[in-house]
Amino acid sequence: MRILMTGFGTVGQGFAEVMILRREFFIERYGEDVTFVCVMDSTTFAKDQAGLDPSELLERKKSTGKVGTEKYQDSLKIMDSVDYDILVEVSPTDIKTGGAGLKNIRHALEKGKDVITVNKGPLALRFNELVSLAKKNKCKFRFEGACGGAMPIINLCRESLVGENISSIRGIFNGTCNFILSKMDNGQSFEQTLKEAQQLGYAETDPTNDIEGYDSACKVVILANSIFKRDVAFSDVDITGITSISSEAISLAASNNMVIRLIGEVSCDKLEVAPRLVPKGHPLSTVGTLNAAQVVTDLAGPISVSGRGAGRIETASAILSDLVSIMDDRKERGGRCLET
Amino acid sequence: MRILMTGFGTVGQGFAEVMILRREFFIERYGEDVTFVCVMDSTTFAKDQAGLDPSELLERKKSTGKVGTEKYQDSLKIMDSVDYDILVEVSPTDIKTGGAGLKNIRHALEKGKDVITVNKGPLALRFNELVSLAKKNKCKFRFEGACGGAMPIINLCRESLVGENISSIRGIFNGTCNFILSKMDNGQSFEQTLKEAQQLGYAETDPTNDIEGYDSACKVVILANSIFKRDVAFSDVDITGITSISSEAISLAASNNMVIRLIGEVSCDKLEVAPRLVPKGHPLSTVGTLNAAQVVTDLAGPISVSGRGAGRIETASAILSDLVSIMDDRKERGGRCLET
Repeated sequence: MRILMTGFGTVGQGFAEVMILRREFFIERYGEDVTFVCVMDSTTFAKDQAGLDPSELLERKKSTGKVGTEKYQDSLKIMDSVDYDILVEVSPTDIKTGGAGLKNIRHALEKGKDVITVNKGPLALRFNELVSLAKKNKCKFRFEGACGGAMPIINLCRESLVGENISSIRGIFNGTCNFILSKMDNGQSFEQTLKEAQQLGYAETDPTNDIEGYDSACKVVILANSIFKRDVAFSDVDITGITSISSEAISLAASNNMVIRLIGEVSCDKLEVAPRLVPKGHPLSTVGTLNAAQVVTDLAGPISVSGRGAGRIETASAILSDLVSIMDDRKERGGRCLET
Repeated sequence: MRILMTGFGTVGQGFAEVMILRREFFIERYGEDVTFVCVMDSTTFAKDQAGLDPSELLERKKSTGKVGTEKYQDSLKIMDSVDYDILVEVSPTDIKTGGAGLKNIRHALEKGKDVITVNKGPLALRFNELVSLAKKNKCKFRFEGACGGAMPIINLCRESLVGENISSIRGIFNGTCNFILSKMDNGQSFEQTLKEAQQLGYAETDPTNDIEGYDSACKVVILANSIFKRDVAFSDVDITGITSISSEAISLAASNNMVIRLIGEVSCDKLEVAPRLVPKGHPLSTVGTLNAAQVVTDLAGPISVSGRGAGRIETASAILSDLVSIMDDRKERGGRCLET
């Protein structure tokens, strides 16, 4: 199994580490190696049809800041020069245009390649176009890590809950906001907690994307399109962030045995991100940087899941989960997959 | 697909209802009907190779207390008189001998039939024997509903987390105990809360099996054998129940921002059920009758899941999940399954 990976930032490097850790696992489970035949960052690439050494890539990135020694102008040309089975697209998210990620994913699907991505831009902007393209070309298109990092929400709905009618999904889809809000439970102010989150590396210098709810909105769009088969984009989400949550509001909630959490909600007719009151002890009252989601089903009732919503290795673990699922399908069907 | 079901109590009747609700789903997904060809309760049976009407079975049970009009002496003889593909074993749990369930499951696996069960007795007593038998005869053997009802813990580990190294699973595996402990969070005494649980139907007249931790211990055994590939039985579990938890202990925990929950823990070298302190806001601090579990993995970190641990339709939904998984496998492989 040959992987072409576009992007070698935090998640790409994490996935290279995971590939080193799981070499034996792949050989044992599938009787074959899984190798990178090409890895690109924003300006350079490395390729070797016989398989690149992931440790070497990680060392070069660390010492030179680049994954490869050769520069490129046109990523699609490089992609076309390689024989590969699966594209792993982990280039930086561009929520305005979809960026290089959208271009790369489109190109791979057009060529009949399976695609795994954690890139929220293309998914929040062009989901149905990409799924149609995958169907048309009989490719698998997977994106577990784009919606809550290591939290297995999409694959849970696709696998264990496939016999259920899902009426809604509500969840905490941004660990930064949850860190801030659950710190505020202890009486700290929003500003004070945001500063702490920035110092700890949980929030970026410009925290807009997180605290205004934009990141959560991307995930709500992905769930709406993938689980509810809707056709919506980022601009369709009704978004309220957490910047106006006061210590007084938190105290008032606490006196009613509640907490305030930033909740994304999606159903057939809802598409919303907003602060909500959650009873203490409810699966969505979780503290810290965890993501959490509650899937409401007709037979099983409410099923909740939580996990780390970000992190180098954690997000890479979701790519691994998608990769194993694609390889299991190929193994069972003895060849190319029949449907996405 | 032809189902033989042994047991027509709460869960069996729930599964019959689910089969009525999902008739269209099966036809759409697999292009075929899923029918009961034989259903047995403790003394009677109904059979029809052309397919029994589940509504009729439910009505007869309601009006006569029996699923069938014919009595039987030997369940295995009845099983042998029917052509079926899958045994759904939902007869009453007998944790001392395994009861009729153990006999029925063994018999079906020996004949090369796939088996789905929620019967904790055979699983807690003879797990590895049954798994070996299934392997030898190339049958699927599934039991999601036996460990936490609708909570998808076993299939989560088998599917989404299959690429992870799991170091431990900790969880709340008994909704009755969790109802009692989380009511005690509000200051009620153990005795008072137990009475309330009995009035609400959450606890049985003889609550020993729940409050002494025996039910949780069965589930810990199932996880140890199925996820950790251990070879343990009920008698190997170190069990402490919740009968000696005082209101004072709960208050003391609360003053440290903790709650007390009955936690089952399993790893390569742990097999335990005992009350534990859990920080408020932790995924295992959940309130009410929910079951919850936290799977600690090497790449994804801690992944938690929760859902209703009991209930007619909820437990039947876990059988549905196993059934869909078996049917998906058969569809993909175009025939009999190759491995459990």
